Amino acid sequence: MSIKPLKDRVVVKYVEEEKEETTKGGIVLPDTAKKDEKPQQAEVVAVGNKIAPEGEEAEVAVGDTVVFDKYAGTKVELDSEEYIILSMEDVLAVIE
Amino acid sequence: MSIKPLKDRVVVKYVEEEKEETTKGGIVLPDTAKKDEKPQQAEVVAVGNKIAPEGEEAEVAVGDTVVFDKYAGTKVELDSEEYIILSMEDVLAVIE
Amino acid sequence: MSIKPLKDRVVVKYVEEEKEETTKGGIVLPDTAKKDEKPQQAEVVAVGNKIAPEGEEAEVAVGDTVVFDKYAGTKVELDSEEYIILSMEDVLAVIE
Amino acid sequence: MSIKPLKDRVVVKYVEEEKEETTKGGIVLPDTAKKDEKPQQAEVVAVGNKIAPEGEEAEVAVGDTVVFDKYAGTKVELDSEEYIILSMEDVLAVIE
Amino acid sequence: MSIKPLKDRVVVKYVEEEKEETTKGGIVLPDTAKKDEKPQQAEVVAVGNKIAPEGEEAEVAVGDTVVFDKYAGTKVELDSEEYIILSMEDVLAVIE
Amino acid sequence: MSIKPLKDRVVVKYVEEEKEETTKGGIVLPDTAKKDEKPQQAEVVAVGNKIAPEGEEAEVAVGDTVVFDKYAGTKVELDSEEYIILSMEDVLAVIE
Amino acid sequence: MSIKPLKDRVVVKYVEEEKEETTKGGIVLPDTAKKDEKPQQAEVVAVGNKIAPEGEEAEVAVGDTVVFDKYAGTKVELDSEEYIILSMEDVLAVIE
Repeated sequence: MSIKPLKDRVVVKYVEEEKEETTKGGIVLPDTAKKDEKPQQAEVVAVGNKIAPEGEEAEVAVGDTVVFDKYAGTKVELDSEEYIILSMEDVLAVIE
Repeated sequence: MSIKPLKDRVVVKYVEEEKEETTKGGIVLPDTAKKDEKPQQAEVVAVGNKIAPEGEEAEVAVGDTVVFDKYAGTKVELDSEEYIILSMEDVLAVIE
Repeated sequence: MSIKPLKDRVVVKYVEEEKEETTKGGIVLPDTAKKDEKPQQAEVVAVGNKIAPEGEEAEVAVGDTVVFDKYAGTKVELDSEEYIILSMEDVLAVIE
Repeated sequence: MSIKPLKDRVVVKYVEEEKEETTKGGIVLPDTAKKDEKPQQAEVVAVGNKIAPEGEEAEVAVGDTVVFDKYAGTKVELDSEEYIILSMEDVLAVIE
Repeated sequence: MSIKPLKDRVVVKYVEEEKEETTKGGIVLPDTAKKDEKPQQAEVVAVGNKIAPEGEEAEVAVGDTVVFDKYAGTKVELDSEEYIILSMEDVLAVIE
Repeated sequence: MSIKPLKDRVVVKYVEEEKEETTKGGIVLPDTAKKDEKPQQAEVVAVGNKIAPEGEEAEVAVGDTVVFDKYAGTKVELDSEEYIILSMEDVLAVIE
Repeated sequence: MSIKPLKDRVVVKYVEEEKEETTKGGIVLPDTAKKDEKPQQAEVVAVGNKIAPEGEEAEVAVGDTVVFDKYAGTKVELDSEEYIILSMEDVLAVIE
């Protein structure tokens, strides 16, 4: 089962990072204490067939790490994995 | 009696999923406890005649399972069945 | 006396349905108890002369039952009958 | 002294209707009790010179009774008469 | 010193009207009691060089009395005179 | 060090006026008492290279005194001088 | 690791300025006391490949100091450095 974005949309997925989940004193931070740390980078897992204007090369490809506006996109859960569907206009940059 | 969407619209219908409606302790969850779980996936049951730009193939067909923005569309009841009428621009992806 | 909608507008009128106006116990429901049941279907009684793009056939005709966005349109009373004037872009589907 | 609307605008004026201004019991209704009864029909008294797209016949003429959106237009008083200046896009229909 | 409006703008100035500034009983009305009586008519004192589409005659000229939307325009004071700078699209009609 | 506005933007600077800063009684007015007196006129100190449509002469030049919408523009401080960067569409008129 | 902005976007970075961080009395100002002093100038560190209309020279280059609207752009952190991704339309001027 896979997800195929339409038109100029891309599907991204957060990459698991090894982060210290406890503070120096060993206290586990509850979610509410971290709520502003919404990541803005994710890996592209699928792209629509109109992500570039006709006759131009796409600036983004599957596997790229992209930066996007943190209020953009629609979250969707599939097979217990969380994805975000973004319009290309909300993809701001590629990390190389 | 059937519903024929106009222009670039599609009509979708939630697919019945077998879900555990009671908690582990056997308690039936009232609707209010689940109100954020609005599904974002549904099956396409009818399509308008302009869902693709002229000369292009449609990306969505009757029978497809689609993902859409949860605040999009207009609910309509017909013969005691609930449908959602969506504009193609609110259809984000197809599940394959 | 009749109403002629301009441009891409249509005039619709709710069809009288035989509905049980009293509850099982025989209690007449006051209007306030039913206020969310605003019907979204009505019959087309007049159409403007630009309801279809030039050279295309109209998708809606007088006599059709149409579904429309419940916040769309302008109510107007004429000869004690209530009509709704809708723009074609607020007509979502036709019931066949 | 007369008013000449610019471009696609029309000037309308409410027609005096003979209405029973007192209730059955003979009580004169104060304005505040009737404030939702804003009429939506008026007679066209002047039209701008661009009320129809070039090469097309106008759908509205001086003397017509038109229906318009009750929040549209700008009220203006001239020689103690009240007029409403409307853009043609707020004129919804003609009563024939 | 004079004011030259740019593009499709016009500069207007309220014409002094001889108005009874005191009530019948001789009481001078303070400004706060009259604040809804903002006039909507004024005389055109200057016009920009694009007040008409190219090749068309302007519908407004210096000296005309025009009606405008009362929330439109920008007030500006010059040599102790108050002017309003309006875009032509906020000029609704000419009084003839 | 100088500031070069991009595209259709202009940079303006308030001209120092000799104003009586104290009231008749000799009381210095604090800023809060004057906050609505935001000036709307300033001198143009730099212009972008697209302040006029192609092939047309610019209506504004360095040295002109212009009137602008008081909520328009972005304030910027450079070498302890305050400037406002305006888009040409917010420049309403030139004082001659 | 570097950041490549898409289309008409540029990436900017605040330049460290030597500022007196303590008041005359030697008191260190906490961040909250300075929160309105958000700088509006930064150095361009990367540009997208569509920052100028086709066939025109770009008005901004890597290394330039630019002025931008303080509410524009998206902050992003990369390798512990903070960057702002701006659309060219939010870049108001270049400091030369």
